[in-house]
Amino acid sequence: MSAAKEPNPARRSRRSRQAILEAARELVLEVGYARLTIEAIAARAGVGKQTIYRWWRSKGAVVFDAFLSLSRSGDEESIALPDTGDIEADLKAVMRATVAEFADPRFEAPIRAFTTEIINDPDLAAQYREKLAGPLDEAKKARLRSAQETGQIAADADLDLALELLYGPLHQRWLHRSGPLTPEYADALVDLTLKALRP
Amino acid sequence: MSAAKEPNPARRSRRSRQAILEAARELVLEVGYARLTIEAIAARAGVGKQTIYRWWRSKGAVVFDAFLSLSRSGDEESIALPDTGDIEADLKAVMRATVAEFADPRFEAPIRAFTTEIINDPDLAAQYREKLAGPLDEAKKARLRSAQETGQIAADADLDLALELLYGPLHQRWLHRSGPLTPEYADALVDLTLKALRP
Repeated sequence: MSAAKEPNPARRSRRSRQAILEAARELVLEVGYARLTIEAIAARAGVGKQTIYRWWRSKGAVVFDAFLSLSRSGDEESIALPDTGDIEADLKAVMRATVAEFADPRFEAPIRAFTTEIINDPDLAAQYREKLAGPLDEAKKARLRSAQETGQIAADADLDLALELLYGPLHQRWLHRSGPLTPEYADALVDLTLKALRP
Repeated sequence: MSAAKEPNPARRSRRSRQAILEAARELVLEVGYARLTIEAIAARAGVGKQTIYRWWRSKGAVVFDAFLSLSRSGDEESIALPDTGDIEADLKAVMRATVAEFADPRFEAPIRAFTTEIINDPDLAAQYREKLAGPLDEAKKARLRSAQETGQIAADADLDLALELLYGPLHQRWLHRSGPLTPEYADALVDLTLKALRP
């Protein structure tokens, strides 16, 4: 057997994993997080409960990975922000992509369902912070820190607050459907945030 | 009968109205908006269904008024923002009060429940915008406009975006429980927003 060829057990594992994540995603949308069970995910995915517990320690962990795999590859390096040296251009590229993702009808139902669960379930919220929001925020703050070093952002700026200023308005507009989600909106948020953070 | 004395039918009406609003508030917290019925509200309030339909045209309208009566008197004048001529001082007074309300444990459960319903029910969201968010936003924009006239805010500032910059971060921090809700936080949001809006 050549090294390039995936052995059967590994292929089976990968397929089971994908079936479990897909079942978890579907079931959260159908019954909500509160009424979702590991048993139901296992039944829908056609695997045993023990197969799920081999990879995940809780329902929250499975659901979390299910949504994580929806929007990105899970590759740690993919979360680093671009750094061309121009903070305005880099943030606009990132925010335009983020706004486009929120405006995409394919993501609308699952992201809204997941957000609702996070808002009402402190345990899932903690997993969300630990596994997704936390690492993403650190990547964003690393980019802002590099802009502080080049004098494009005030050295004493509160970077947590800076991120809230950038993403809070978008989050609220999307949740309340209170305005259009356009590239111009993404640019305007970046312009205002950078003006607020100017040295 | 003196004019100062409320006649019995008026007093009965007022009591029925309050009983209905209280029942609606309790039931949304207990069963959620989706499973709430006019019949259940009527039963809990000890009134007939027709009594509810005499004052409200839909379930959304009752629930909406139930939450509206929780946080303010319903008096139109009470929503105007203070105008001392100093936009920074006025916004800080308003934002400190708003942050304190979100941090108040008595409001936590009902506001979170109501927000969840708004996020997932476009019909209720439309009523929320029409009856509460819309008028409140107009009052806030009137105060920002007066600051534009005195040159404290750029004449060409987008005031809808200005409100999102002020309230979006707070909304997100509260929903995701991602940071402390303090007077210092309220002040920092005002400082950054005013810097972003400076002429």
